[in-house]
Amino acid sequence: MKTLGLLGEPGHYGLATDLYELTMAAAYFEAGMQEVSATFNMFVRHLPRGRGYLLTAGLEQAVEYLQGLRFDGPSIDYLRALPHFAAVSAGFWEYLRDFRFTGDVEAIPEGTVAFANEPLVQVRGPLIEAQMVETFLLATINHQTLIATKAARVVDAAAGKGVIEFGARRAHGFDAAVYGARAAVIGGCVGTSNVLAGQSFGIPVYGTAAHSFTMAFEHEREAFHAFHRAFPDHSIMLVDTYDTLEGTRRAAELGPSLRGVRLDSGDLIALSREARRILDEAGLPQAIIVASGDLNEEAVERATREAAPIDLYGVGTEMITSKDAPALGGVYKLVAVDAGGKHRPVRKLSPEKATYPDAKQLFRERGTDGRFAGDTLALQSEPLTGEPLLTPILAGGRLVAPLPALPEIQVRARAERDGLPFGVRRLHDPEPYPVRISGRIQELMAQMHPQD
Amino acid sequence: MKTLGLLGEPGHYGLATDLYELTMAAAYFEAGMQEVSATFNMFVRHLPRGRGYLLTAGLEQAVEYLQGLRFDGPSIDYLRALPHFAAVSAGFWEYLRDFRFTGDVEAIPEGTVAFANEPLVQVRGPLIEAQMVETFLLATINHQTLIATKAARVVDAAAGKGVIEFGARRAHGFDAAVYGARAAVIGGCVGTSNVLAGQSFGIPVYGTAAHSFTMAFEHEREAFHAFHRAFPDHSIMLVDTYDTLEGTRRAAELGPSLRGVRLDSGDLIALSREARRILDEAGLPQAIIVASGDLNEEAVERATREAAPIDLYGVGTEMITSKDAPALGGVYKLVAVDAGGKHRPVRKLSPEKATYPDAKQLFRERGTDGRFAGDTLALQSEPLTGEPLLTPILAGGRLVAPLPALPEIQVRARAERDGLPFGVRRLHDPEPYPVRISGRIQELMAQMHPQD
Repeated sequence: MKTLGLLGEPGHYGLATDLYELTMAAAYFEAGMQEVSATFNMFVRHLPRGRGYLLTAGLEQAVEYLQGLRFDGPSIDYLRALPHFAAVSAGFWEYLRDFRFTGDVEAIPEGTVAFANEPLVQVRGPLIEAQMVETFLLATINHQTLIATKAARVVDAAAGKGVIEFGARRAHGFDAAVYGARAAVIGGCVGTSNVLAGQSFGIPVYGTAAHSFTMAFEHEREAFHAFHRAFPDHSIMLVDTYDTLEGTRRAAELGPSLRGVRLDSGDLIALSREARRILDEAGLPQAIIVASGDLNEEAVERATREAAPIDLYGVGTEMITSKDAPALGGVYKLVAVDAGGKHRPVRKLSPEKATYPDAKQLFRERGTDGRFAGDTLALQSEPLTGEPLLTPILAGGRLVAPLPALPEIQVRARAERDGLPFGVRRLHDPEPYPVRISGRIQELMAQMHPQD
Repeated sequence: MKTLGLLGEPGHYGLATDLYELTMAAAYFEAGMQEVSATFNMFVRHLPRGRGYLLTAGLEQAVEYLQGLRFDGPSIDYLRALPHFAAVSAGFWEYLRDFRFTGDVEAIPEGTVAFANEPLVQVRGPLIEAQMVETFLLATINHQTLIATKAARVVDAAAGKGVIEFGARRAHGFDAAVYGARAAVIGGCVGTSNVLAGQSFGIPVYGTAAHSFTMAFEHEREAFHAFHRAFPDHSIMLVDTYDTLEGTRRAAELGPSLRGVRLDSGDLIALSREARRILDEAGLPQAIIVASGDLNEEAVERATREAAPIDLYGVGTEMITSKDAPALGGVYKLVAVDAGGKHRPVRKLSPEKATYPDAKQLFRERGTDGRFAGDTLALQSEPLTGEPLLTPILAGGRLVAPLPALPEIQVRARAERDGLPFGVRRLHDPEPYPVRISGRIQELMAQMHPQD
């Protein structure tokens, strides 16, 4: 049985969810609530440890899911055969067979900085539909936003030197590697080692050779010559298989067509200086130095501070898993219900898990220096100043406008990061960014009572 | 353009790799090394922090990749158009067009305990092929082994109470959720909330309702009745939307067909005692208590120690991301080269990154108590005692025997964990497990000299 690439068939999207989305759907259906509408907000309650902001990513794949969401025959047969659904009426299975997502979606565009409690995505539509899409939206946007946010930190630490995403082998499976590479590029990486991500998203791909390549030959020099014959203008030689500086000297023998060397172990800062000297003395000032090997934003920042002559950083495990904060706790909460002609804002009351009620808009203001000065979370109808960040994406399940291509998102993300106050952007102990709750939301909350 | 489920097409598997696997392939091809054979070992150098052992998982998907690995036309066109490959001859593209993995693979079966430096997978075959598969094998086996290992800890902490995998929304994308759920079941979970994993792997699925379900109704009681009407024999009511104990009382009103209640916030240990008392006093001793909400092995262990009356644990974020140790550092290293009739064992020499040379077998001995007493890493030809763990999986690219089904793997994994010495299995400060290096490997290492 084929078990890889299960999402290759949109007919499978229907089951790409937690069971409770489907039990709730059946219970709503059986209660005759097909006409009830609802609004949900996706947001994070707290920024991940050490982060001053989020960089949003994943919307394109979330939209692809929403537009492709179907239940194929085998999916419906599978559900019908589960003991849970034994008492559910035939009408529900007909409903699923014809299921399409017909709701409205607004979102903060990909590559935008965002903060705790801000709706990254707002979904309105029939209650059953709007509830159903929770799990997949969360999985997709939590993941890519997590990696884009981490990548932005590494890219900032590199202070203008290029960062390449190198983490496929340590990602949470190869799919996580592909979408993680996409997110890393939104975070500012200049490329990836991941070829499928390169092909699928038009990302520049980078690659040299492994230590095994050098070891497959009896002598390092032989290996270098073989690689150089195949890639006369694209040879970046991995030089640390036996002795980094000896390897660098051998690579330099290849002459002016040598593109550069890669250092993958040892004291990368000290070795980069030695390697630079060797390359320069060999008359190869154009040959670049790539550094890799367990790098993260701290290691890259140290190299930047010490002005190590490293031209490109290859960052793997730490970035593709956001290792120091490997999960984004995005949640998807009901904020309003429309039933029987009545609009009812709702909110969860438990103190640590409070949510702000009703459909929203988010306004961002800039200070006189052009940087972001603060956001206000408002009701959708409130006429506040500032840039409204929640943008229509789907109306009645249809795309309102084409989604931006990845290079466009990357450009936006760079401008967004440059718009952050310095203290919010910094890597360590970032300052909190002001997010105000509008007067109207506060009034609404004061009027609301626990329901039971 | 469709960007979800990219691995749905085996024609895409060729690009599901790091670019350097393909540049190495081209360089080997151009150097006329098609006849060179090689042996690679996948292993981890160190166990993840706090872990006493690994529980292997992911082999089934790795094998599916190996057997399906092809380069379709668009993949080859993409590669040919990359500037890197400008000087590569047409013969290489013909080679890729006909590419099949024809090598031999041995592996430690899924659901086996394993330790640092032990080859989880050993690949032998044409050098180009055996190198090419590195990235995907690592991504797949690193991920599932990581999650299976974490899940086993949570399951051990639950001391016989069931653990359900609940993490889809926090996984590194939905694919990571699916394969993570599979791995969690190998680790001992009794089921998952992930429906696609349930359908694809025959895993029992679990699901109740979200807080939003309760809030979609004006009164909690109304919500409970609606759910109970749709699922008269499968209603586990989420009771903490407004007040956990009040909610439990309302759930109890549903009578003897109530399957149970779910607690998702607050002091789960104290609340479970109160909820148990309410259910028992209502004459519902059969109604179970499910606990969820930011659980990990420490929280579950505490509940076990305090004998909290919790029947099932739903564990999400912490397990599906292995949050305290979110990456497994598996590597894939060349250990021998066969060229021109000569067999040449190889090894990397850098002190922290040393590897053991040549093709291997791994032998495991049991003590008089029936538990595992120690492993020996040996050359393949060494006639040692103990159970040989590296098992033939593929010969010439063909499956030697059908792979075990998931329930069989789960049974094996349970027996394997029960075979661990108590100190190795424990959750905190586990004892190291003895892995010896055979005399023949040590002799071989002493004979080997740095190559240059």
